[in-house]
Amino acid sequence: MSKIMAVNAGSSSLKFQLFEMPSEEVKLAGTIERIGMEDAIVTLKFNGKKKNYTIPIKNHTEAVDILLHELVDEKIVKSLEEINGVGHRVVHGGEEFNKSVIITDKVAKVISDLSDLAPLHNPANLTGYKAFKNALPKVQHVAVFDTAFHQTMESDRFIYPIPYEYYENFKVRRYGFHGTSHLYVSQRCQELLGNPVHSRIITCHIGNGASLAAIKDGKCVDTSMGFTPLAGVMMGTRSGDIDPAIVTFLSGKLGKTAEDIVNILNKKSGLLGVSGLSSDARDIQVGIDQGNQRALLARKIHVNTVCNFLGSYYIELGGCDAIVFTAGLGENDIKFRELIIDKISESFGIKLDKEKNNVRCQETLISTPDSKVKVFVIPTNEEIVIARDTVKLLKL
Amino acid sequence: MSKIMAVNAGSSSLKFQLFEMPSEEVKLAGTIERIGMEDAIVTLKFNGKKKNYTIPIKNHTEAVDILLHELVDEKIVKSLEEINGVGHRVVHGGEEFNKSVIITDKVAKVISDLSDLAPLHNPANLTGYKAFKNALPKVQHVAVFDTAFHQTMESDRFIYPIPYEYYENFKVRRYGFHGTSHLYVSQRCQELLGNPVHSRIITCHIGNGASLAAIKDGKCVDTSMGFTPLAGVMMGTRSGDIDPAIVTFLSGKLGKTAEDIVNILNKKSGLLGVSGLSSDARDIQVGIDQGNQRALLARKIHVNTVCNFLGSYYIELGGCDAIVFTAGLGENDIKFRELIIDKISESFGIKLDKEKNNVRCQETLISTPDSKVKVFVIPTNEEIVIARDTVKLLKL
Repeated sequence: MSKIMAVNAGSSSLKFQLFEMPSEEVKLAGTIERIGMEDAIVTLKFNGKKKNYTIPIKNHTEAVDILLHELVDEKIVKSLEEINGVGHRVVHGGEEFNKSVIITDKVAKVISDLSDLAPLHNPANLTGYKAFKNALPKVQHVAVFDTAFHQTMESDRFIYPIPYEYYENFKVRRYGFHGTSHLYVSQRCQELLGNPVHSRIITCHIGNGASLAAIKDGKCVDTSMGFTPLAGVMMGTRSGDIDPAIVTFLSGKLGKTAEDIVNILNKKSGLLGVSGLSSDARDIQVGIDQGNQRALLARKIHVNTVCNFLGSYYIELGGCDAIVFTAGLGENDIKFRELIIDKISESFGIKLDKEKNNVRCQETLISTPDSKVKVFVIPTNEEIVIARDTVKLLKL
Repeated sequence: MSKIMAVNAGSSSLKFQLFEMPSEEVKLAGTIERIGMEDAIVTLKFNGKKKNYTIPIKNHTEAVDILLHELVDEKIVKSLEEINGVGHRVVHGGEEFNKSVIITDKVAKVISDLSDLAPLHNPANLTGYKAFKNALPKVQHVAVFDTAFHQTMESDRFIYPIPYEYYENFKVRRYGFHGTSHLYVSQRCQELLGNPVHSRIITCHIGNGASLAAIKDGKCVDTSMGFTPLAGVMMGTRSGDIDPAIVTFLSGKLGKTAEDIVNILNKKSGLLGVSGLSSDARDIQVGIDQGNQRALLARKIHVNTVCNFLGSYYIELGGCDAIVFTAGLGENDIKFRELIIDKISESFGIKLDKEKNNVRCQETLISTPDSKVKVFVIPTNEEIVIARDTVKLLKL
């Protein structure tokens, strides 16, 4: 029996879950937000209780200290010695990491070097690692990469149709993200299919950020996000794929830099940009119910872009055994799933069970028994992958 | 009986065909290239002869004079009075033109105003128009737009997932190009299908530039090119769709402007960029035969990007009755067609007749009689559409 802390560190936040392994029981889950502010917010859930307070927190080191004190004060652990390992989500593993690894100084250096490809995320992930390493120097730490699962893609799927030297010199290629989630739900889906030798699964991780992955025999063969998480399907505030010439056209028209435009494509586009209402699909649905035409347009484009990739991956996999919906919208948006399945039902030979689709956040087969393709809702759990990989690598 | 000149004017070139209508007999075809140079090249084909010479040509007006003199000198017409109308290819018709129109001063002004959306093409098209209008002031001139056929797309297919105001203020939307070609081959395909009331056709115009269109009951519902002809599938020198964040990343890395990068995406990418060899698919095939790995990679990506759109359009059309290959590669590249059909054959239920596929530039059904989807090679003919629309509009 061991206790593993799974950590997801952002530039001003920490998310964490303490697991007891191998039971996978969550002993504590929580977040610390607004790190660096006078009014940082600590939120903890444990033993069916919720604890929530505001406190000044200078940096990640202070945040980790607060968390670890809470663990002892609240008797979640008797001493910090009980924590046997820490697993850290790291966004970008580049081509260097195709699976999780124990973090050594050398590994930390490579993660730092990859910051070029994920300037917002990798430095924050490393800050989290350093804070926990400081506080828990005796245990080993593991990095679990968002990109790793996609490293099985073949070069004709990850090389862009641009001068090849940009791949050689600057590592410009498709990486894909949400890998830990695609891995988790596709493995669970394979179990639900009875672990066949061959399987063709399309996983739809659709939250505020969104990506699809085409998975053959358990290996990722393609995914919709690209060099950055801007690419692929329409998202809450991100455009997904668009004609790249729009960047310079708008730059000229608006008198803004191309960087400003890419920023707009990341933060002011998607559902928010088209509807003018909100990046949240729930608000879009309210807008539609009230007869808002731009909300309806946003939803239609949203469905279209997901269906485009479903069609591409159907070809790429040479057919499809199962489709999985996961993450915020994938798990909760009943109407969205129905609209998507309606569009592809004839081509894929899918029959949706509308009663079973009336479900949120619960592992469910939502297609009928005679549907050619099985459709599942599978709640994602990236934290459990982090905990499992940590246990495996540290041989606990 | 009437004679119609069909014209395609570039910034330093003129392409033209003189048709006798309604027989559609080509009385003369030719090009004048390097207009503005001391060594402009005139190439004419008529009565089974070919005439070719170099001569200084200052501008399009001089070029048109040379052409019209040749027509009389070579006795292709007795007098210029025999020419009853001139049809001009115009690249961008924006949202203003959803079909061909007689060019009035007002129409010419709108075409000029649309230059913002096609800065390389519309001004050149207008220069050609003015030169012919000058030389043949008594006849009417017609504009045939590359974008017009795609104007039947619904808003959820032409609005980008970016702030809606960019559509309202700057007309940023998907337009699509090669419309005259998609129209021609899809109409011909409908005839070959026996003019059914309902049809779902995917047309693949694949030349050095390339686009696909999804056509339902004769109307375009989607197309792969976008706001500009950079978007969509990989092409000879164009990237097609890529993660737009690559533009700013490369701009930073290379110390070039974003405009420079988009220029590279237009002119140095695609087959040329990946292979490092050539933008010409024939050279790529030679490279593959010689064991060049990057040529092979270029070809694979080329096939993948076309198949991605085929998959998306299969979903969008709710199935598919026929696929049409046209333009340079579509009509001539036997191997390319085979590789594409191989990838989609299982999902679409297509059976390729390899013997029949062994064809170039010839209207042919290349699928077997028991194939669920019919696959055709149909040579495109944009000039004949220009001539027909001119006859129709001028009531000749």
